[in-house]
Amino acid sequence: MSTISLEQIHSPSDLRGLDRRELKTVATQLRQFILQSVSRTGGHLSSNLGTVELTVALHYAFNTPSDRLVWDVGHQSYAHKILTGRREGMGTLRQKDGISGFPRRSESEYDAFGTAHSSTSISAVLGMAVAARNAGQRQRQHIAVIGDGAMTAGMAFEALNNAGVIPGINMLVILNDNDMSISPPVGALNQYLARLLSGQFYATAKNVGRAVLQHVPPVLELARKFEGHAKGIIAPATLFEELGFNYVGPIDGHDLDALIPTLENLRQLGGLQFLHVVTRKGQGYKLAEADPVLYHGPGKFDPAVGIQSSGKPSRRTFTQVFGEWLCDMAQVDERLVGITPAMREGSGMVEFEKRFPMRYFDVGIAEQHAVTFGAGLACDGAKPVVAIYSTFLQRGYDQLIHDVALQNLDVTFALDRAGIVGADGATHAGNYDIAYTRCIPNMVVATPSDEHEARLLLSTCYRHPGPATVRYPRGAGRGAEAGASLDEVPIGKAVVCREGRKIAILAFGTLAQAGLQAAEALDATLVDMRFVKPLDEALLRELAASHDAFATLEEGAIMGGAGSAVMEFFSAESIEKPVLALGIPDRFIDHGDQAAILSEIGLDGAGIEASIRKRFSSLLKSMEKQVTIEASTPDRHSA
Amino acid sequence: MSTISLEQIHSPSDLRGLDRRELKTVATQLRQFILQSVSRTGGHLSSNLGTVELTVALHYAFNTPSDRLVWDVGHQSYAHKILTGRREGMGTLRQKDGISGFPRRSESEYDAFGTAHSSTSISAVLGMAVAARNAGQRQRQHIAVIGDGAMTAGMAFEALNNAGVIPGINMLVILNDNDMSISPPVGALNQYLARLLSGQFYATAKNVGRAVLQHVPPVLELARKFEGHAKGIIAPATLFEELGFNYVGPIDGHDLDALIPTLENLRQLGGLQFLHVVTRKGQGYKLAEADPVLYHGPGKFDPAVGIQSSGKPSRRTFTQVFGEWLCDMAQVDERLVGITPAMREGSGMVEFEKRFPMRYFDVGIAEQHAVTFGAGLACDGAKPVVAIYSTFLQRGYDQLIHDVALQNLDVTFALDRAGIVGADGATHAGNYDIAYTRCIPNMVVATPSDEHEARLLLSTCYRHPGPATVRYPRGAGRGAEAGASLDEVPIGKAVVCREGRKIAILAFGTLAQAGLQAAEALDATLVDMRFVKPLDEALLRELAASHDAFATLEEGAIMGGAGSAVMEFFSAESIEKPVLALGIPDRFIDHGDQAAILSEIGLDGAGIEASIRKRFSSLLKSMEKQVTIEASTPDRHSA
Repeated sequence: MSTISLEQIHSPSDLRGLDRRELKTVATQLRQFILQSVSRTGGHLSSNLGTVELTVALHYAFNTPSDRLVWDVGHQSYAHKILTGRREGMGTLRQKDGISGFPRRSESEYDAFGTAHSSTSISAVLGMAVAARNAGQRQRQHIAVIGDGAMTAGMAFEALNNAGVIPGINMLVILNDNDMSISPPVGALNQYLARLLSGQFYATAKNVGRAVLQHVPPVLELARKFEGHAKGIIAPATLFEELGFNYVGPIDGHDLDALIPTLENLRQLGGLQFLHVVTRKGQGYKLAEADPVLYHGPGKFDPAVGIQSSGKPSRRTFTQVFGEWLCDMAQVDERLVGITPAMREGSGMVEFEKRFPMRYFDVGIAEQHAVTFGAGLACDGAKPVVAIYSTFLQRGYDQLIHDVALQNLDVTFALDRAGIVGADGATHAGNYDIAYTRCIPNMVVATPSDEHEARLLLSTCYRHPGPATVRYPRGAGRGAEAGASLDEVPIGKAVVCREGRKIAILAFGTLAQAGLQAAEALDATLVDMRFVKPLDEALLRELAASHDAFATLEEGAIMGGAGSAVMEFFSAESIEKPVLALGIPDRFIDHGDQAAILSEIGLDGAGIEASIRKRFSSLLKSMEKQVTIEASTPDRHSA
Repeated sequence: MSTISLEQIHSPSDLRGLDRRELKTVATQLRQFILQSVSRTGGHLSSNLGTVELTVALHYAFNTPSDRLVWDVGHQSYAHKILTGRREGMGTLRQKDGISGFPRRSESEYDAFGTAHSSTSISAVLGMAVAARNAGQRQRQHIAVIGDGAMTAGMAFEALNNAGVIPGINMLVILNDNDMSISPPVGALNQYLARLLSGQFYATAKNVGRAVLQHVPPVLELARKFEGHAKGIIAPATLFEELGFNYVGPIDGHDLDALIPTLENLRQLGGLQFLHVVTRKGQGYKLAEADPVLYHGPGKFDPAVGIQSSGKPSRRTFTQVFGEWLCDMAQVDERLVGITPAMREGSGMVEFEKRFPMRYFDVGIAEQHAVTFGAGLACDGAKPVVAIYSTFLQRGYDQLIHDVALQNLDVTFALDRAGIVGADGATHAGNYDIAYTRCIPNMVVATPSDEHEARLLLSTCYRHPGPATVRYPRGAGRGAEAGASLDEVPIGKAVVCREGRKIAILAFGTLAQAGLQAAEALDATLVDMRFVKPLDEALLRELAASHDAFATLEEGAIMGGAGSAVMEFFSAESIEKPVLALGIPDRFIDHGDQAAILSEIGLDGAGIEASIRKRFSSLLKSMEKQVTIEASTPDRHSA
């Protein structure tokens, strides 16, 4: 056997030229490469270590890129990237101008569909399979690889349900079942999968026997005979068979000798196939196997010693501030319940679950349900807090309008990752929530400017007896002491942070700090608006009377954003003062460092100052003149 | 037995005071009342005739309103309304200030949750059940009644999946299975339910035998014995049992003698119960039984003769214009595929399905999947048109951003019912789509002003190789000849319809007609903008140079709408001209006549004129003065 090296594999066709016995070597080298590479760049680790063999087997058995391969969520696609010509690019993973942490159509012809949000793969692959059918391409295969967590989202069910009635398509859904060992099942489906795995299901055994295994254990032989007798009375089947798929599995997703013949077999069969594969997150790296959550998306670390807690205490993130607030409020208000759509760690709810297990609900990857579940709770006297990323509330948008806001129900949304998200890039952008929430009647939309304000506004919106969102960005704030208070502030009231002249800068959220820098340089007024909705109309009227121009700041899309809200108010009030709206421009923004991106789009102190100087140059010139005149006038009373 | 009359029943407690044998009389009278009432007011008929006995049985067996009862979709809740004190209100159904066509919390304490969009009931009821558990109200029952169509939505699955793992709750899901006879099953779940009903499932028989029926047929006795033998090897169960529910049924939903003991039994049992009830849409009214789709939501008609096609040809609706365009474009472009989330009739796709069955996809009530399925098709050379109501695209919002727009895929969205929807009211409001689509990069947002423009802009957006929405309102347009052309127009170019002075009215959509009236009265310029995104920036610059003030018109929320888009552009260009944004105000608007509502919110010709006069009164006064001066100047060159 030749000593194959990963460096010789530039595309899947190189892989397909190998002897099947060489693939184990490839897998071993791939795993090692991923570990080394991620430990240097940061990125997703556990999920990628878990899908090494599956990736090798898929590209070996199928004719990619002609056969379409879609990775659900896509954070398990590193081995796929390495095998499809991007090995050298892995050093730039998730960095500006580097390769993405997710599959992207623009990055490679092997990335059949861009993914990142969960549970889209089956719908996408079904579309491709229908396109192939209608174009007469009967041989092409279409594969979705989806985790058991992603399978709990309604969208996946919708797609399975639809696929089951479309004739003449080739589609293989691979369920990558890897959640068994790391956390208690969050839904009935996971429990069902656990029962499937435990072997108590006759149907499972039947299918493994029929389609995959050569050596059938005696009990399965019995079952097979039994099947004949029972015909006409019983037709036991897995849930996936009920939906029209041919179910095969479960098989060991780390065993190439099981995977490859099974995949080749399924490719031959065509039609609607469902393969249940069992893998282990972090496979092959003991530390990740032991704690796949810790190694889910680590920063840089030394693989030899593992992740070390850094010595110096870092600034606390908004996520942490929220998590502490949630526990503190739950302590004094027993009506509080916390809801997360499968983001316990990401949303800072680990401690809350420990302390208030009966009031903690991880509903699975199920944003639609999360929102309306909250609405139901609010109908009967509970006070739900739905902790959800800005980008994921997009999944519950109709429920926010139709179930929560229309009924004016008391549900508080803690919107994490609002604004620029950094390494995750455009798929996770929290850019749209101001636009898509403020157009809904009854909503309160709060934009805290720092950690202390986050606590204040969370308490305020929580006590407000109607729907409200509190949005805050990824990562740490300016380092303000959040404190322990549960005080509230008046809804729709802003805070003037600096009184200046001519120009008023209206900050919505954490750009207030950069805004303050600019205000100092320009001698402008700086207001922390606190709320996009309702606006502090009284203050805006006052400011309009005493200022000549306005600039608005928000870490959100300019289109339809908070700046537009100010313009709409001025328009409705016949206030004719120019408003410069600064925020995120109308384009998708790739992954990169958060601060660098903000700077690049002009949302740091210098950028804000420059934009205002450019837009209001004549006004500023007149101010300079005035300052000169005032300076040369001996009897002036004010500076 | 007393001769009970429906008029004696003012609340469910009156009903519960009756002898069980009297309930059939109540049901008969209820059915008659509904038929007479709906034939006079218009409204939903088939679904309401189908749930008469179920409603009687539920209020008889359960202690409403203490026990929570949620009707999914809610268009089957008329019997419920009549039995809960709203019999006399039925004459005002769906009319301004009358009772709603859907359950509403503000209308009755018996309406535990407002519904209208499908598939929310299980989530809502789960929330209520958890609230009861956490408050120690262990006796309270929580019931969701959901149709088999609604069950195909992912949201329902998310809720079932979550319910299965929450201990200590009382929750009864009643599957009202009524779609069997009227249309081919649109999903694998429907086929599964059909198999359940066909009796070939041992599991079904087992449960019916165990929980409901007294007289067990011999074959079930056999099955029961068989169950014991098989133990340990097989565990067949329904899909709903796999998800943790106790499945009971199917039972006849028109048989009170089956329904009431079953419901009483389930009430006693508590816990997580699932009852499969079979009903027939239109039950008891032969014409509706024969054509439940025609009698789904009729206008007024004579029950004795049924719905008659009106003699005079009415103006064609935008839905019809779309349907014809779709067929015409499909005829010349075989890449076109049409997708509907279970709204074939409502979206005008009946003819398209007949003519192009392989390119027609009813994906079920599955908006999330509908959008991403379209994205998948677009990846492989198909050209999908997703026909969807404005209010329902809210369900696919994340998919629109993440799967379609981010990948700049060629999917065209035909947004029907954009703007004021009339009788369906706030739940179906198509008010938000301009705000929620235009903030997404890459989107084209088109707003045709009449039937002819609708065809032009559909062709234009279809040919545009990226994502686009074409929004049009419910009902008929101004009666413009749509024509048969498949011509296109330049994207982002507006049409000046009338050249006037000082004021420019920018119309986005069908308000252009009312805008023209106002423009005539004010001697203003009237522009049919055609596109909210991209705006016709060159024209706006020109107009700003030649006009003093602007008014924007849109049948959509002012907040974040097209008017704001114009303000943002002016702000970015340092154009300091006042803009008056006219559109739908920031409140939920109840059901009522479409034209009356538009008039009430100032969006008819007179209202628009009045708003402009008020806002730009001094400008208009100066115009009058100028006209007087010009009129008295003999040598003027232009009018």
